[in-house]
Amino acid sequence: MIQKLIQKIQETKAPICVGLDPMLNYIPEQILTRSYKELGETLEGAADAVWNFNKEIIDHTWDLIPAVKPQIAMYEQFGIEGLKIYEKTVRYCQEKGLVVIGDAKRGDIGSTSAAYAVAHLGKVQVGGNVFRAFDTDFVTVNPYLGTDGVKPFVDVCKKEDKGIFVLVKTSNPSSGEFQDRQIDGKPLYEHVADKVVEWGSDCKDGRYSNVGAVVGATYPEMSAALRRQMPDTYFLVPGYGAQGGTAKDLKACFNEDGLGAVVNSSRGIIAAYRQEKYARFGAEHFAEASRQAVIDMVTDINSVL
Amino acid sequence: MIQKLIQKIQETKAPICVGLDPMLNYIPEQILTRSYKELGETLEGAADAVWNFNKEIIDHTWDLIPAVKPQIAMYEQFGIEGLKIYEKTVRYCQEKGLVVIGDAKRGDIGSTSAAYAVAHLGKVQVGGNVFRAFDTDFVTVNPYLGTDGVKPFVDVCKKEDKGIFVLVKTSNPSSGEFQDRQIDGKPLYEHVADKVVEWGSDCKDGRYSNVGAVVGATYPEMSAALRRQMPDTYFLVPGYGAQGGTAKDLKACFNEDGLGAVVNSSRGIIAAYRQEKYARFGAEHFAEASRQAVIDMVTDINSVL
Repeated sequence: MIQKLIQKIQETKAPICVGLDPMLNYIPEQILTRSYKELGETLEGAADAVWNFNKEIIDHTWDLIPAVKPQIAMYEQFGIEGLKIYEKTVRYCQEKGLVVIGDAKRGDIGSTSAAYAVAHLGKVQVGGNVFRAFDTDFVTVNPYLGTDGVKPFVDVCKKEDKGIFVLVKTSNPSSGEFQDRQIDGKPLYEHVADKVVEWGSDCKDGRYSNVGAVVGATYPEMSAALRRQMPDTYFLVPGYGAQGGTAKDLKACFNEDGLGAVVNSSRGIIAAYRQEKYARFGAEHFAEASRQAVIDMVTDINSVL
Repeated sequence: MIQKLIQKIQETKAPICVGLDPMLNYIPEQILTRSYKELGETLEGAADAVWNFNKEIIDHTWDLIPAVKPQIAMYEQFGIEGLKIYEKTVRYCQEKGLVVIGDAKRGDIGSTSAAYAVAHLGKVQVGGNVFRAFDTDFVTVNPYLGTDGVKPFVDVCKKEDKGIFVLVKTSNPSSGEFQDRQIDGKPLYEHVADKVVEWGSDCKDGRYSNVGAVVGATYPEMSAALRRQMPDTYFLVPGYGAQGGTAKDLKACFNEDGLGAVVNSSRGIIAAYRQEKYARFGAEHFAEASRQAVIDMVTDINSVL
């Protein structure tokens, strides 16, 4: 699966993914009004608005980008109705040929991680039939429980040609609280990185492994060290734009061949119309603002590669 | 909320919760057959079987126990249909007066954790209306992202009188891989424990905090040290029974007043009829086997308190 992502990145010349993390307050009034009018100020109404918002953004950006990263929490907050829209969004993006990275940060003891791996990447057997639930191409995984909590995901990656990105060094302000603590002369996140390399070593798909790493854009020196430590691991890089990471900060996440990282932007793309820079589009043309923001992000990142 | 859990524990004299983690292969043939006949060998059929299985177990155990802990992964694997049954199970248990601990192990950057907190503990605003999605009483939380990933859950706990259990030392075999690594003279999980105490310090509900800790039954010496380190933190203790933890191992998780821990058993209760010990009940009376397994577990644990 990582090969498919790389191929799409090379075709689009865009090492980015769009974070489909819709908050209701990002959604323009005209979309909310339409959904509420039809379905009421209900969970169904909110979910419908999220769907219409997503669809318009996907329709205006899909030809420029290799991948999207829907954040499942933003759908889960609307319960079942929200999760239906998560699934619908995943399916729609895949129909458009996009690689879908489900940002779910799941992780548990072995048998439970196996169920999550089935839910998000694999298939479930019901009597004589087989079904797929959310069926994203990649999913993000939390490593706190160690190997037996990650291995079931890796097993499914092998069987189904799917991928995962394991949290190594996250982009948030307090990520250092535990991740940066020194253990035997190096920070915890580098120990996690060692394990990510080990977990991915027999899960290669070309040069790179289907077991990737989440490495935040907001700590460029750490990214540089991790890039050296794990040259054949693809990085999913959150934190560009709204969280403060700049293109210069990102350079360290890439290898010399210009590959090795896919940079996410969520708010910066999907709520672009609310930025002064894109205000000329207006709320009515929010998806065109998103398209312009994608073009600008790609130009910005390619300028340092 | 922790007071409600303690009160229920004192009423039932049972410091336990039943893990509602249904795997299809735990479910007796007669239930599967009935659901498949009605709804086909489909996700709906599987979900219906899970519901009928859960309902019978709840109906046969609710009067003996204070709480249940449904593991959301086991429902998520059946997609939307499974998650509907997760929600239905949560509601049914709450109607029976049970405290519901959603075992979801969520955790992300701040804004995303806020959405998870809304999804599982809080409420979401849609226009002029307010809705609750999964609305469990407690939820489990992963601490790898540090304070800003946990704080949004704590905020909702304060506002809504709910609770969380943060992963400190998990019960699985490779939990030590990262959690046991020494940092400044003590293991990572003790550093996490320090933070759990800090996060819970202004979230007290009586002696104990609404911010609890997950501490596995399978590492009794570590539990004993953690008990001393965080005397006013309630422990959710997985690993009893099927995972190998014994009542003797558990003693260290409790305070001298017999409080301070709620011990989970999943397979050992819900699939009790498959054990030789309870074979006399037969698959037909699987829920009576579960009832007897609850009685035996409570007797076993109380024998060491």
